[in-house]
Amino acid sequence: VQRLRRLLSLRSARQSEGAFVVEGAKVLSEALAAGVAVESVFAPAGTSDPVLDAAHGAGARLFELSPGVLERVAGTSTPQPLLAVVPAVDVPLERVRGASFVLVLVDVRDPGNAGTVLRSAEAAGAGAVICCEGSVDAFNPKTVRASAGSLFHVPLVVGCDALQVLDQIGQWGVRRLATAARLGTPHTSVDLRSPFAFVLGNEAHGLPPHVAEVVDEVVTIPLAGRSESLNVGMAAAVLCFEAARQRAAAPDEARPRRGGSPG
Amino acid sequence: VQRLRRLLSLRSARQSEGAFVVEGAKVLSEALAAGVAVESVFAPAGTSDPVLDAAHGAGARLFELSPGVLERVAGTSTPQPLLAVVPAVDVPLERVRGASFVLVLVDVRDPGNAGTVLRSAEAAGAGAVICCEGSVDAFNPKTVRASAGSLFHVPLVVGCDALQVLDQIGQWGVRRLATAARLGTPHTSVDLRSPFAFVLGNEAHGLPPHVAEVVDEVVTIPLAGRSESLNVGMAAAVLCFEAARQRAAAPDEARPRRGGSPG
Repeated sequence: VQRLRRLLSLRSARQSEGAFVVEGAKVLSEALAAGVAVESVFAPAGTSDPVLDAAHGAGARLFELSPGVLERVAGTSTPQPLLAVVPAVDVPLERVRGASFVLVLVDVRDPGNAGTVLRSAEAAGAGAVICCEGSVDAFNPKTVRASAGSLFHVPLVVGCDALQVLDQIGQWGVRRLATAARLGTPHTSVDLRSPFAFVLGNEAHGLPPHVAEVVDEVVTIPLAGRSESLNVGMAAAVLCFEAARQRAAAPDEARPRRGGSPG
Repeated sequence: VQRLRRLLSLRSARQSEGAFVVEGAKVLSEALAAGVAVESVFAPAGTSDPVLDAAHGAGARLFELSPGVLERVAGTSTPQPLLAVVPAVDVPLERVRGASFVLVLVDVRDPGNAGTVLRSAEAAGAGAVICCEGSVDAFNPKTVRASAGSLFHVPLVVGCDALQVLDQIGQWGVRRLATAARLGTPHTSVDLRSPFAFVLGNEAHGLPPHVAEVVDEVVTIPLAGRSESLNVGMAAAVLCFEAARQRAAAPDEARPRRGGSPG
């Protein structure tokens, strides 16, 4: 239980143990469906849920928690009825070579936004999400919650330096498209059928100048009214589904498909 | 101060007084820019911000708060440095006649999602947002915060019965498009240039059956991977910007424009 609390609250604990905590039966079943080797599951005594049997069958150890312990550990007023410890699911950068629809998070700080980005990425058929140093931890409990299990289904790279990532994917032939609140090419006028990466920056400050310098093009979502910007989560949803639209309209090119490999 | 607390926490107080609270200089300046008759502004003694002068010049009464009062009233750990009481900004349904890009919230319960919907609506150039009975209060502090001031710039209708709204806008020639997680026409295949309304339901349960019965068509965002649905805020962003895309691509039709009237 001490360990659960550490893994929930400390990024350093998650990094040194190479593990993180997922909350709730739904996200746990997503982890199992993705073939993740769930390490242990914690639930109040008497919990009966098929996902517990599935986790046990897949080799996870089950632990019963006394009444009230879950509430104290989870630190939210409406805790999910079970917690599980799972190994970090990130892959090395080299493993997403060949992905033709990529998101790079350079300086995204809000854990909820980062989770929403993962959810949009999976739902729109992205082949990789790369969470660079400086961005929020992809295994933060709020990010895991907001991702609704998507982080188990999109190849995820974490902890790399942004410049090295952009350099590497550029060498692979992936166009690096910075996203900015203004002055870029409208997102609907950019060709998103050939390999590209959306490079997302900090909501308040955008991309750091040394990163903005090395992208291939700047993309902007044109806004009506007095709007100045969308939040990063909303912007990622709009951008990802514009890419999905263009790819669906061009059946000969790579396009999102159910259960596909990196697209 | 008692009144501030009531207006922040009680929907009934907001309704009976016809007023609500906005937090922060940014949203207050949006209210002033929209010509809203700000009633009063509360800030810690010694606050100096041009928006205070602007509010005063526009006829608002200014009140100084003792140290610590704002934190207690706002009930958040990171309160905005000022609060203002403003009159409800909703308009009667009849006033949005002629809007050709409408959002109808039938049963949206999460205040953050509702605020995101307002933000997407303004940013994509919608002409009206209609928040029916059963949905969260559009003047809930969390909704106001998530809307980032958008609720002052999009004509907003609140409190009507969903069936009456759908009946009325249908008579005006607005196509009513239910949004559903599956089985509808792909959103990119639906003509969004002629007058339409997206009808958004509850995230968990969708639209109530008696409402789903009276729509003209069902629209779905096709999802890749194992994704089951997007949250209402993300879905609204994707849908609204698909409408903006189609309208921008058809210059002879109504399309979003800066500072435009109901579009």
